[in-house]
Amino acid sequence: MEPIGIGLAGFGTVGAGVYKNLATNGDLISQRMGARFEVRKVAVRDLSKPRSVEAPEALFTTNLDELLSDPSIRIVVELMGGIEIPLEFVRKAIRAGKIVVTGNKALLAEHGQEIFHLAREHRVPVFYEAAVAGGIPIIKVVRESYVGNRFLSIHGILNGTSNYILTRMTDTGMDFAPALEEAKQLGYAEADPTLDINGWDAAHKALILASLAYGFWLDPDQIFVSGIDQVTAADIRFADELGYRLKLLATIQAGPENAIEVRVCPTLIPKSHVLASVNGVFNAVAVKGDIAGDSLFYGRGAGQDPTSSSVISDLAEAAAAIESPRFCYGFTSHDLYGKCQPVDESISRYYLRLAVNDRPGVLAAIAGALGEAGIGILSVIQPEGQEGDSVPLVLMIHDASYGAMRKAVERIAGLDCVRDQPVLLHVESFS
Amino acid sequence: MEPIGIGLAGFGTVGAGVYKNLATNGDLISQRMGARFEVRKVAVRDLSKPRSVEAPEALFTTNLDELLSDPSIRIVVELMGGIEIPLEFVRKAIRAGKIVVTGNKALLAEHGQEIFHLAREHRVPVFYEAAVAGGIPIIKVVRESYVGNRFLSIHGILNGTSNYILTRMTDTGMDFAPALEEAKQLGYAEADPTLDINGWDAAHKALILASLAYGFWLDPDQIFVSGIDQVTAADIRFADELGYRLKLLATIQAGPENAIEVRVCPTLIPKSHVLASVNGVFNAVAVKGDIAGDSLFYGRGAGQDPTSSSVISDLAEAAAAIESPRFCYGFTSHDLYGKCQPVDESISRYYLRLAVNDRPGVLAAIAGALGEAGIGILSVIQPEGQEGDSVPLVLMIHDASYGAMRKAVERIAGLDCVRDQPVLLHVESFS
Repeated sequence: MEPIGIGLAGFGTVGAGVYKNLATNGDLISQRMGARFEVRKVAVRDLSKPRSVEAPEALFTTNLDELLSDPSIRIVVELMGGIEIPLEFVRKAIRAGKIVVTGNKALLAEHGQEIFHLAREHRVPVFYEAAVAGGIPIIKVVRESYVGNRFLSIHGILNGTSNYILTRMTDTGMDFAPALEEAKQLGYAEADPTLDINGWDAAHKALILASLAYGFWLDPDQIFVSGIDQVTAADIRFADELGYRLKLLATIQAGPENAIEVRVCPTLIPKSHVLASVNGVFNAVAVKGDIAGDSLFYGRGAGQDPTSSSVISDLAEAAAAIESPRFCYGFTSHDLYGKCQPVDESISRYYLRLAVNDRPGVLAAIAGALGEAGIGILSVIQPEGQEGDSVPLVLMIHDASYGAMRKAVERIAGLDCVRDQPVLLHVESFS
Repeated sequence: MEPIGIGLAGFGTVGAGVYKNLATNGDLISQRMGARFEVRKVAVRDLSKPRSVEAPEALFTTNLDELLSDPSIRIVVELMGGIEIPLEFVRKAIRAGKIVVTGNKALLAEHGQEIFHLAREHRVPVFYEAAVAGGIPIIKVVRESYVGNRFLSIHGILNGTSNYILTRMTDTGMDFAPALEEAKQLGYAEADPTLDINGWDAAHKALILASLAYGFWLDPDQIFVSGIDQVTAADIRFADELGYRLKLLATIQAGPENAIEVRVCPTLIPKSHVLASVNGVFNAVAVKGDIAGDSLFYGRGAGQDPTSSSVISDLAEAAAAIESPRFCYGFTSHDLYGKCQPVDESISRYYLRLAVNDRPGVLAAIAGALGEAGIGILSVIQPEGQEGDSVPLVLMIHDASYGAMRKAVERIAGLDCVRDQPVLLHVESFS
């Protein structure tokens, strides 16, 4: 059988991993598939840049268009990073009839609607298992295995860098800055970790999962995203005392009247929930379907080998799609439910930490402000042994809308007895 | 678009669940798939038996052949239970060109080789997501998502009944018999729980996973299977003291020279491993691929709704396969590695509990017998506060072949100082 020609756009960590692992396990893959892959061209920005994996010099080019004009290339694999150049490349690839495999979560989250519209128009499949949760096959599971389910919720720990930092802060009591520094030294955080830290890497992944679960693309500007850079060792310690772990959690769930909520933020998770035990650089996704019930998918969320494992599974799908085009259009639709739930209408429990003057009447004033807003208090802890001008006061708050809670916190922040800015975090009870 | 006709063979718990959930979520499924399923006939053994889910009387028949002779039925779903009748039905269905969906693990484990040979010959796909681990999509994951990986190992908690019983024994200290009784009362164990208790239900599932991972069917007679009926509260307690949980664990792994080991037996798992936290009726499968690394898949391993969720995902695959037949033959092969590792050659750590006379020299005699066989001792506990003719002695044993260990235990059982039959259990260190 004729080998299936592949064009690799990008030869960074994942691109080089795909090349390496296709070579290492090529015989096994072709035994299983009945077809062999052959990388025909590799496009890179800089030919002189040292490569971590060896490949014949003749494969390399700096001209992306060469991948599209080569008729022996049936599948292009976009692993470049960035948005504008990949977007233009993917558009051209679809128009040229090349099957697209990409691991670019930012590209899909920002331009998924356009890309999949174009793909449908040209009847060209686009695969993206590597875009979410590295080696965990969550795209396939959500798209295919849950085809008979309404999704009640999806909760994910989707960013390994953040999870590593929070795990270290939890285990050692260290603060955010030294934990980030450690993550950089170990290669778990990039030189510029902005998107990992500010929650947007996880948010891109959450938007992709939401599009599969609910059949439409949410506007990134409308979802609630908050990173871990403001998380303090004190909050992790208080959460622990209350029976919770603090995680950067992506929550995707169906609200009333087909409104879909997507939020990514530091969230208190009960220690008894299995997501609370997902530590270090690992990722996990908990899926609740109306008939499948609760499931959890756990694994390596990043790294050369796990991510290239997902790319290779997409290549296998792509190879099948060459001969069986219908398959690629099954199992997903982009005109189902339909609107983004406004952040202020989302309902959750909360953790509220205040710095207050240590004098009588303070709790009454705060409870009063919450009570006026119709917001109930679940429990209060005033940690002992604290000294200084102000003392911490931690409140666990009943289910309330984020809008009501936000306004109440603004009022509380304005009280005379409250010092500093209040810390407000979501609490997920998985009810 | 013309609806896709389905014939249901069996209307027990799962069959009725498929009917119910296709009705409940039918609109959603057809939105996602672009195709609608319609159950055209339901074959049952006894028309007068009360049904848990309502369906039009006209659908029902006692004649399985009616499902095969109806040209409007494209897919047959075999959920009857038993082996001989389903085998004959599946053979006829394949010959009649009907796509087969089955949840029958015993059928596949015993006759998979014949069935898939016949299926390949007639180019008819056979799907079986519901046969292993209920609502967990482990078949799809192993078959498709890991297509680029060599499987280093698969470890599974694959029987919810056993896991419920062991969980209750662990949590309460109760013995096997009352825990089984409780499981029956709660509907977690059937009236005849033989296959759950003796390990063979899990073994059938393990054989199916092994066939996907290594590409050939192992002979059920050659694998090591041991159930939980001999597990005592004492062993669970000693395991706990040593830092382990006792689980009915299926181990599937590649040994030297392409020999594949499949064993299912009560196994000590370190408490720190995530499988040790899989409790109650839940199932979980830990997969180690050479490039994907460690992953875990967790969910409901049985029950009407979770299992029918898996059947429905197979129906979606089947519907895609009607138009795209090639796909069904990708991602798996049945002539890869190739032989079953003889049980006696498998290497593991062990837990050995003896009842011994409480007098000097006993440990020396036992250690001597192990030493002569070249078997090392990791640690020894002689629990305090025991009274009576004999006292327990628990040894943790270094990696040794099962054959050598078995012989050494036979010799130890013959020592004067040893009372009762020794208890030998596997220990999985996940190294």
